[in-house]
Amino acid sequence: MHRYFFPFLLLIVLGCQQPMPEKPASQSTVTTDPLPSWRATAARQRILDFVTAVTDTASADYVPPAQRIATFDHDGTLLTEQPVYFQFRFVFARLRAMAPQHPRWKRDRLIQAALDNDVEKVFSYGGQGISKLITIAHSGVTTDEFARSARNWMRTARHPTTGRPYSEMVYQPMLELIGYLQAHQFKIFMVTGGTTDLIRPWVEEVYGIPKEHVIGSRYKLSYRLSDSGKAELWVEPAMEFFNNEENKAIAIHQFIGQRPILAVGNSDGDIQMLEYATSGVGERLGVLIHHTDSQREWAYDRQSNIGRLDKGLDKARQNNWLVVDMQKDWQVVYPFEKQAKEPAGQDTLVH
Amino acid sequence: MHRYFFPFLLLIVLGCQQPMPEKPASQSTVTTDPLPSWRATAARQRILDFVTAVTDTASADYVPPAQRIATFDHDGTLLTEQPVYFQFRFVFARLRAMAPQHPRWKRDRLIQAALDNDVEKVFSYGGQGISKLITIAHSGVTTDEFARSARNWMRTARHPTTGRPYSEMVYQPMLELIGYLQAHQFKIFMVTGGTTDLIRPWVEEVYGIPKEHVIGSRYKLSYRLSDSGKAELWVEPAMEFFNNEENKAIAIHQFIGQRPILAVGNSDGDIQMLEYATSGVGERLGVLIHHTDSQREWAYDRQSNIGRLDKGLDKARQNNWLVVDMQKDWQVVYPFEKQAKEPAGQDTLVH
Repeated sequence: MHRYFFPFLLLIVLGCQQPMPEKPASQSTVTTDPLPSWRATAARQRILDFVTAVTDTASADYVPPAQRIATFDHDGTLLTEQPVYFQFRFVFARLRAMAPQHPRWKRDRLIQAALDNDVEKVFSYGGQGISKLITIAHSGVTTDEFARSARNWMRTARHPTTGRPYSEMVYQPMLELIGYLQAHQFKIFMVTGGTTDLIRPWVEEVYGIPKEHVIGSRYKLSYRLSDSGKAELWVEPAMEFFNNEENKAIAIHQFIGQRPILAVGNSDGDIQMLEYATSGVGERLGVLIHHTDSQREWAYDRQSNIGRLDKGLDKARQNNWLVVDMQKDWQVVYPFEKQAKEPAGQDTLVH
Repeated sequence: MHRYFFPFLLLIVLGCQQPMPEKPASQSTVTTDPLPSWRATAARQRILDFVTAVTDTASADYVPPAQRIATFDHDGTLLTEQPVYFQFRFVFARLRAMAPQHPRWKRDRLIQAALDNDVEKVFSYGGQGISKLITIAHSGVTTDEFARSARNWMRTARHPTTGRPYSEMVYQPMLELIGYLQAHQFKIFMVTGGTTDLIRPWVEEVYGIPKEHVIGSRYKLSYRLSDSGKAELWVEPAMEFFNNEENKAIAIHQFIGQRPILAVGNSDGDIQMLEYATSGVGERLGVLIHHTDSQREWAYDRQSNIGRLDKGLDKARQNNWLVVDMQKDWQVVYPFEKQAKEPAGQDTLVH
């Protein structure tokens, strides 16, 4: 599988930038359908109308390309976040790889729970527990070394319930949306609570998003010259910035310097990003992906510990944000459904 | 002057992206000369050779476009930094505009010195003094309000010795270099000790660099909803990140996520950025602009309080960085020399 992993991903990306009409849809304009995995619902129409309004030079809502900034959350917006955030899986795997060099970890119950893959027990330690584990798994290496381990993990890791590579657990309709926006000269940024350095090494291959457009959580770095005079950056065991809620809006300003005209998220952690985007002058669109499909993906919102979407649903009503219903609005969820040429929903997930 | 300020700048930018051969140079390939304001010296040749090596697909040193990252310092590298950094001039002007609302400032000698435009006296307070003034001038407003004041100042401010707009005090050879690199699919980032928010509002017009490619010093921000429910970011009176020396390499990783293959600076504050860039695998180029021209610009290096280049000159020798001699390597320094069609050096600066 590993050998054709990247060419395969490239195909997905290229495929979504110039979508090929493999599957005749119900519309008459099949050959130019930019969003073939979206059903012909009001959600799809609202996205198309928005893009037309801001890109048509004759439109009152026209926005020049330099200002066509779109920000996307990652977990649960582009990638399945159930039954556990992919980053936690990376952390557990990395701790297992590091464990032989750390015999003292045997006496640490939290770390031991992670090494045993006991997610429930790790969660019982609350936010501080998982935060400690993430820090251990990220620090004490150079940024170059960390990038290598992130890339290798992404090549080999498998989703716990489907057994598929994580790169296949991305949402096909969102790949198409990214490609559609890029074809209309939007600049796509990923604004995620995940750590930037875990995502950048493979983000171009998987999503067609440039490395420098990933804005995530980050650790403190220190600059050192090696014995041979080579400049290196070391990851220190201290989180510098946790990119969630209000910090997402702040990071957007610090990194991009202008309000997005389109922001897409799926949980309460994305509320401020959507507020910040849609508070700007002119035509704006805020989008929340609502996980409603217990057959093809997962169904969860107000009560979930992962990707909770509670206040966000109320805010969406107040602010006229678009709520995408995954079950109703998406004809296909994952790329492999499309490739299998089977009717949507036939790929069963055991969970 | 104000009304045709931006169209004029746009002309410069467009002009440097597709340079017009107004001035026959000594080479035979006049019509395709990408760097007409550079003399035919070894410095110019080394830059051309580097770009050819990394962009020719048949070359052993070929670098794919996604990795063609080039970072440029600002003050003294793209813009004249003498007799005082442009940011200090902005700060003094902004304090004067704010003063009527702050009667207590009358009792503060440091602020009073700034209001009197007494640069020497302000400098006598050391780094902490200027740092306090910059903080006062930047904070207590929303990022949107600050952007407006930065844009307005840039439109109206004049260089203290030439009386020209700051946008005309940029180096024509560097505009050409940026355009030349962009034409070869380089991504150009500005990595500056100046505050990001002061530069972004006009960086596209002046340099053709996108807003999101400015990486500078930054202040802490807070997120608030206004009474009408509009999301706003407020600048707090606390510097969060001073982007100089080691922090330049760190910020490059946090914002860009890969080592530049080309880095250009002019002072000791740029040493780590050049070390970080040139420590990478493959063909790399580190460049220092050496201010050697007391006639057309200023001549300063090891002893200067502004833009000191001391250790950098030694590092350049050790690391084989290119040192550009402004007097010998540049045929033209400022855009207006070119436009005036006068022999270079005839525009006298009084200083």
